[in-house]
Order: sequence, then structure tokens, then C-alpha cells
Amino acid sequence: MKADDVKKLQQRKYREQLGHYLVEGEHLILELMKAAIFQPHLANAQLFITENYADWVHQHNKLKLRVTIIGHKAMSQIADTQTPPGIIAAVPFAPVNGKEAAHAAHSERAIYLHEIQDPGNLGTILRTLGWFGGFRCLLSPGSVDPYNPKVVRASMGAIFHVPFEQNVPLDTVQERYPRIACLDMQGKALRENSFHNYDCYVFGNEARGVPREQLDELNATAFTITGGGAIESLNLATAVNICIYELRR
Amino acid sequence: MKADDVKKLQQRKYREQLGHYLVEGEHLILELMKAAIFQPHLANAQLFITENYADWVHQHNKLKLRVTIIGHKAMSQIADTQTPPGIIAAVPFAPVNGKEAAHAAHSERAIYLHEIQDPGNLGTILRTLGWFGGFRCLLSPGSVDPYNPKVVRASMGAIFHVPFEQNVPLDTVQERYPRIACLDMQGKALRENSFHNYDCYVFGNEARGVPREQLDELNATAFTITGGGAIESLNLATAVNICIYELRR
Repeated sequence: MKADDVKKLQQRKYREQLGHYLVEGEHLILELMKAAIFQPHLANAQLFITENYADWVHQHNKLKLRVTIIGHKAMSQIADTQTPPGIIAAVPFAPVNGKEAAHAAHSERAIYLHEIQDPGNLGTILRTLGWFGGFRCLLSPGSVDPYNPKVVRASMGAIFHVPFEQNVPLDTVQERYPRIACLDMQGKALRENSFHNYDCYVFGNEARGVPREQLDELNATAFTITGGGAIESLNLATAVNICIYELRR
Repeated sequence: MKADDVKKLQQRKYREQLGHYLVEGEHLILELMKAAIFQPHLANAQLFITENYADWVHQHNKLKLRVTIIGHKAMSQIADTQTPPGIIAAVPFAPVNGKEAAHAAHSERAIYLHEIQDPGNLGTILRTLGWFGGFRCLLSPGSVDPYNPKVVRASMGAIFHVPFEQNVPLDTVQERYPRIACLDMQGKALRENSFHNYDCYVFGNEARGVPREQLDELNATAFTITGGGAIESLNLATAVNICIYELRR
């Protein structure tokens, strides 16, 4: 990929056209290098660096990822952050493997996010899924792009590890994950043992909550994180993270 | 307060000088109005609105908060957000009541945040504390300003409810909260019953973690959120929120 194309990866439509996304900065690139040892598609990532990163790359680039040296001006045009990092990678999308996805239900549970909008929320959720392991993340149509640079940054490298799928319609989930739970304002308490008995956990959009009618059709069981305080609702990422913790407790 | 002073409230030094902070937008102002019923200092908040908000204010301003109508240009200069909300309030700081703080130990537990930097993290933590109730939030010197507009926004109104204190040195905490726990990478599992036996829970900065030496002097017991995944660490707000959930489970 040419440096000119790389800056287009700021935009979702070009990411999807080119099948690549941006990873910025030393810390994330190190995570990428570690993950690439076990995930061959990541070894096709391409590094773009400014001159001053030459030694650093020489020291860390054990897998011999392809490296292109560019000027500071070109770097600041590519980067999403206000202070350009000096090192950036164009990374191929994770392969979407139909079979793997179909079989996933036997070994993993799923977190289904309905029209999640905030990149920071999705990044934090991926990070938590990466921390605990054992979950697949399903995104509904109309969700934020998981390859958005803000999501990638907030995921702190989890984007390389957590299996996720985009554009999954809610009504197709039950074929793979028969028993469905959802988080809602009125439901059973989370600490009930039965909370553990489901294959897929559905969370609604930040503002509008869960799609109640669709969930009724799927016979989804509603659970609630019981509060007693003065506030209307929890942050979406907080609710998801607490549920993941409860399931892995 | 004059409209000219209000825009200065974007800056921490003026907030501290004037003892007021900004609250932007319909949703937060409604939360402010609800909270003001029980908290007299909030009834001294002053609303600044553009003409088109006159009817809305007429309908909702039951407590007769002082209202000033300003132009769209003045509004966009005051507001922190890119799309000015049309309604904004200058709100007095919560009273710092020494006695109340001293007595708090008898009825509340505390979350101590050491040099927390990210306003989104602090806002989300306050929101979670507001949801569950029963905690006081203590901020170390060098922490982000809880009256920062980004914190206020992410708190979703919890800023009006959760008791908090700024500039609390870690070595003064034990007088009020004798039994201290901290979250660290190596400690007992969170689900152990003994996790509930503490008065104050200390969390470190986003990048540097907890101040281990100081905590050793306080005989703090370390706990860990056990993960098994591929990621180095949890997001700070996620770790705090999971602990709060566990304590209120």
C-alpha cells in the first residue's frame, strides 16, 4: 500500500474498500508485533515511520514487517492524533471465516451490541473482552466501525485478539446462540445464578436501549444491574463490562 | 455572574477563582433542576439561554433559577461543545463541609483515585458511583478537575449527587478510613469475601498504577481482577466500576 492510500484509511469507506485499518503509536505497534506471531494475517501489516524511528524498528521488528520511511509532514497527514506518533501501521482486516463463526457457538459465548455508537465505548468493551477472554463480539448493522482509529486506540491492542463480526442482524443470532439474555432497566438481578445460563447477551444503543420487540420474539430473558442511587442509567460500556465480569467471576 | 465571566469557566483556574462550573445542554440541566430540590446550593445556579429556549425554560424552571438570555454568538463562545447547546448553567461548587467529611467514614466507604488523568474515566466512575450509591470519591493532588466540562458531561448528572473531595493526600486517608485495600496486578482475587472488609479502595493512575511504597506504609491489602486473556491491563474506569459492582453485589 502506498503512503497516499494510507491516509485514506481515516475514512470508513476506504478502510472497507482497501481492507486495511490504521494502528498508531509505539505501544499499539508492539501489541501488533506480539499478536502477529500467532495470527499470520497481521504479519502482512505495513509500517510507516519517520526517520527517527529507524533504530526502534530495527530493534523490535523481529517478524520483518514491511517498513516505509516517510517525512514528518506525510506522517502528520496520515495520523488521526493531534501529535503524530512517528510510527503507524496499515493492518489488514481480520479474515472473516464463515466456518469459524458458525462453530464458535460451541466454545464461546457472545456479546451482541445493538447499534453501539461511541468509539470509546466499543474500544473499552473490546479491551475488557480481551482481558477476560472467552467471548465473541457481534455488532448489529448501524454500529460504529470497530476499525475506527478511536476504537483501535481505546482497545489497547484487544482489536488484534477478540473475535468480532460486523453487520450481524439480531434475528440471525439464535441459530448460533440459542439462549439469549438482554440487559434492560427491568429484569432479574444480575447476581442470580441463572444469569450464567445463556449463550448470547444483548445490549442496546447508548440512548435508545435494547430493541424490546425483537427481543421478545427471541424469548430473551431480561436482566438488570440493580442500583439504588440517584442516576438514571449506567454508561453502556460500564454495563457491558460489569456483565462480562459477572460471567467470568 | 456576567456572561463574560461565564466563558472563563472553561479554565480550571477561573473555575476555582469564581467557585462555579459549567453545565451544558437540556439533559444535564434537567438533572440539575431535579437535584436542586434537595441541595440548596444548586438553586443558586444561573441559566444562560438563547431566545429559542425561553419556552422550554418557562416550562421546566420550577425552582426559578436565575435566567439570562444571550445571543447565539455569545453562546458558542461560552460552550465547550462544538454544537452549542442553547442552554448552559453556571453552577456553584458543592460546599466543602469539614465536619461532614470527617463523619463520612461512619456511613460511607470511599474510592480513592490517585492522579487520575482522563476526564472521561472520572466522569464514568462518578456516574457508576451515582448509580450504586454509598460511596465518597476522594481525589489525590494532581488529579483531573472533577468540574472539567468533560467530566461533568460523562457523569450524566452524578456530579450533583456523589460526594467528592479534591486534593486529599493519600497519607491522610487512614485517619478516616482505617482499613485500606488497593487494586493492583498481583493480589487476591476480587471475588474473595474479604474484599468487602475495607473502608477505602485505592486505584492508581492510568499509566503508572498504584503508588506501591505509600500503600505498603498504610498496610493496604492488594486485590486483582483476574483475567486470562491476551491484554495487558483493564481500563482504569472499568477496573473501578467492576470493584464498585462487586462491593454492591
